[in-house]
Amino acid sequence: MPDKIVLFIMDGLGDLPSPKTALQKARKPNLDRLAREGISGMMSTLWRGIVPGSDTSHMNLFGYPPERYYCGRGPLEALGAGMELRKGDIAFRANFATVDEKWNIIDRRAGRIPTEKGRVLAKGLDTTIDGVHFKFIPTVEHRGVLVMRGHGLGAGLDGTDPHGPGKVLSARGKDENGWKTAEALNKYTKWVYKKLDRHPANEDAKLPANILLVRGAGEYCEVEPVSRKYGVKSACVAGGALYKGVARFVGMDIVSVKGATGDKNTDLKAKGRAVLEALKNHDFVFLHVKATDSFSHDGDLNGKAKFISKVDGELVPMLAKSGAVLVITGDHTTACSRKEHTGYEVPVLVWNKDGRRDLVKTFDEVSCLSGGLGHIVGCDLMPIMLNEIGKGRMSGS
Amino acid sequence: MPDKIVLFIMDGLGDLPSPKTALQKARKPNLDRLAREGISGMMSTLWRGIVPGSDTSHMNLFGYPPERYYCGRGPLEALGAGMELRKGDIAFRANFATVDEKWNIIDRRAGRIPTEKGRVLAKGLDTTIDGVHFKFIPTVEHRGVLVMRGHGLGAGLDGTDPHGPGKVLSARGKDENGWKTAEALNKYTKWVYKKLDRHPANEDAKLPANILLVRGAGEYCEVEPVSRKYGVKSACVAGGALYKGVARFVGMDIVSVKGATGDKNTDLKAKGRAVLEALKNHDFVFLHVKATDSFSHDGDLNGKAKFISKVDGELVPMLAKSGAVLVITGDHTTACSRKEHTGYEVPVLVWNKDGRRDLVKTFDEVSCLSGGLGHIVGCDLMPIMLNEIGKGRMSGS
Repeated sequence: MPDKIVLFIMDGLGDLPSPKTALQKARKPNLDRLAREGISGMMSTLWRGIVPGSDTSHMNLFGYPPERYYCGRGPLEALGAGMELRKGDIAFRANFATVDEKWNIIDRRAGRIPTEKGRVLAKGLDTTIDGVHFKFIPTVEHRGVLVMRGHGLGAGLDGTDPHGPGKVLSARGKDENGWKTAEALNKYTKWVYKKLDRHPANEDAKLPANILLVRGAGEYCEVEPVSRKYGVKSACVAGGALYKGVARFVGMDIVSVKGATGDKNTDLKAKGRAVLEALKNHDFVFLHVKATDSFSHDGDLNGKAKFISKVDGELVPMLAKSGAVLVITGDHTTACSRKEHTGYEVPVLVWNKDGRRDLVKTFDEVSCLSGGLGHIVGCDLMPIMLNEIGKGRMSGS
Repeated sequence: MPDKIVLFIMDGLGDLPSPKTALQKARKPNLDRLAREGISGMMSTLWRGIVPGSDTSHMNLFGYPPERYYCGRGPLEALGAGMELRKGDIAFRANFATVDEKWNIIDRRAGRIPTEKGRVLAKGLDTTIDGVHFKFIPTVEHRGVLVMRGHGLGAGLDGTDPHGPGKVLSARGKDENGWKTAEALNKYTKWVYKKLDRHPANEDAKLPANILLVRGAGEYCEVEPVSRKYGVKSACVAGGALYKGVARFVGMDIVSVKGATGDKNTDLKAKGRAVLEALKNHDFVFLHVKATDSFSHDGDLNGKAKFISKVDGELVPMLAKSGAVLVITGDHTTACSRKEHTGYEVPVLVWNKDGRRDLVKTFDEVSCLSGGLGHIVGCDLMPIMLNEIGKGRMSGS
């Protein structure tokens, strides 16, 4: 019986037929071999027909049902950006934007400033107002995360980002803690504007990055880590910050991989090597690739199929040689024809040399419909995986 | 429409391929005929991937979810041993052990004393200490059950059995009722040691059975019996004490069968005759054989397959002639390759001459993956069975 697991998530993997799906179009002898030698099925990462977000789906796949554990996108992004959070911290997704002197939004992304400029501007944006500490970390291009720390704060507030054209919103609390938080946030936003609007790095900019817009407020809470909940030492190999954030949230070790960009040019072999390395001292490795989802959002079915073929050729053989149980699936179905997440199930495959087999011969959305796993939901997956390595939870005696 | 049901549980029936499973290896024309003429599927007796104990799985199969009804192994074993329990009684699994004068454990099983010696030693072990009544019943070899009855007792305590080498543990309460119970139990254990250590039956014994170790504390509670909950009169035909205990817990009549030993040499035909007899005045008969599980724990795939063939030849034809709906399954998958319970699903088969049929042709872990029942969980089974005889619960109008 193998004693290690690799959970390999291809983001947005599932698709709709047009007339073939990307999985059906792709050349993928290795994935098909795993399907023949393993057991497959279909999975709703949340519940039947529900459209999963990337955050909630991953939480559910790790066995942390979002209805119980979800604390908003902000803290997950902040964790993914490397921020150290404490219980009670309020975290937001943030981005640099361009506003005029009346705070009408000229560009929500400040002309997509380069990552390096974001780093320059971010220096000096940490401060304390009315006893509330503000810490901003820039991430990629115009993006970043903002964390507020202080007594009596809460995530019950709307952010300042109007999510479209218009003026910067005044943050509004929905409850007592939210009021206090909104008040401090509004003062901070004014302070940031004053600071950025005259920042030398913005001097000649057509679209000066002169304000921060925040959204996705969430109050960080601590959860029982994977190691204690399941008795497995776990690691995450991912490029995208959100996925690293969810992984940190549940207590996984984060493996840094040079070339794992979270985009279409990610270095698959480097990720594969990182997984093999992580398996040396971890029982459970979560591997994530994002590009399948990105191609789907672009409506690029051929690009998605080609990327799957690349994964099949470069990454899958490395994983198959690791000796671990392989579990391969997506976090949701992002249909190229719709260019968005959908509530359709995703195919899922469990390959364990000593485990069960079914009669499925290819890994795609049609074959897996009659697979031996049947139709499962996201929170079934962790117990199923743990059982594969003899670490299933015993109930009774 | 038939109006009677036989639920036939082959303990630990499910298996993993090595490369065939026991069900796939066994010659079993009768079980395969039932599969062809009935409808099959796969079942997680608790939930996907969760490893069922024998107690919790049977409770769930009878429609008493353990998360609501489970009160520990002790009361179930005590009921199985024939003890009359009252609400609030604290019951333990107990065994005779050998200790030195400092209560270091020499042998946790006192050299597996013969059942008869256990009976001799047990005489005089009932007493009252500080108003708490102690009653011990010996069962098989070194095993028995201990029940404490008194005011203010509780099951919130650890027992005295260290489950391995070391000293006899001092029972420790976890709450107020547990403290009181632990205190009385510790006094009783001392009293038992004094009594047994000088017992004439131990006089020349190399490993004197001079103490009782207890574990699996549970407080007995009464539940709505099967007859009232489902409107069926039910009986149990089983050899093993635990299975009789769960059956008594849910209010089934226990049928005594000479030769039903709960081991590999159990008299299958005697059990079959007992089922036919019980069907005369019961609507629902639960039939249990243990040996499939015992062979699995021994890693004996051939023995398991041969035993299944024996069941197929001796028992299944008798049941099929009864006119009742037959439901045949296991309480969990005990894999011969792992020699332990696992969280893999078990095949399940419903045979009703007037009910549904699917395309499954053989009764095993692969064929049933594509069976018409799909993938069910243990608590689905009782409603499914009741519906087969027209006694399904109506909801709405």
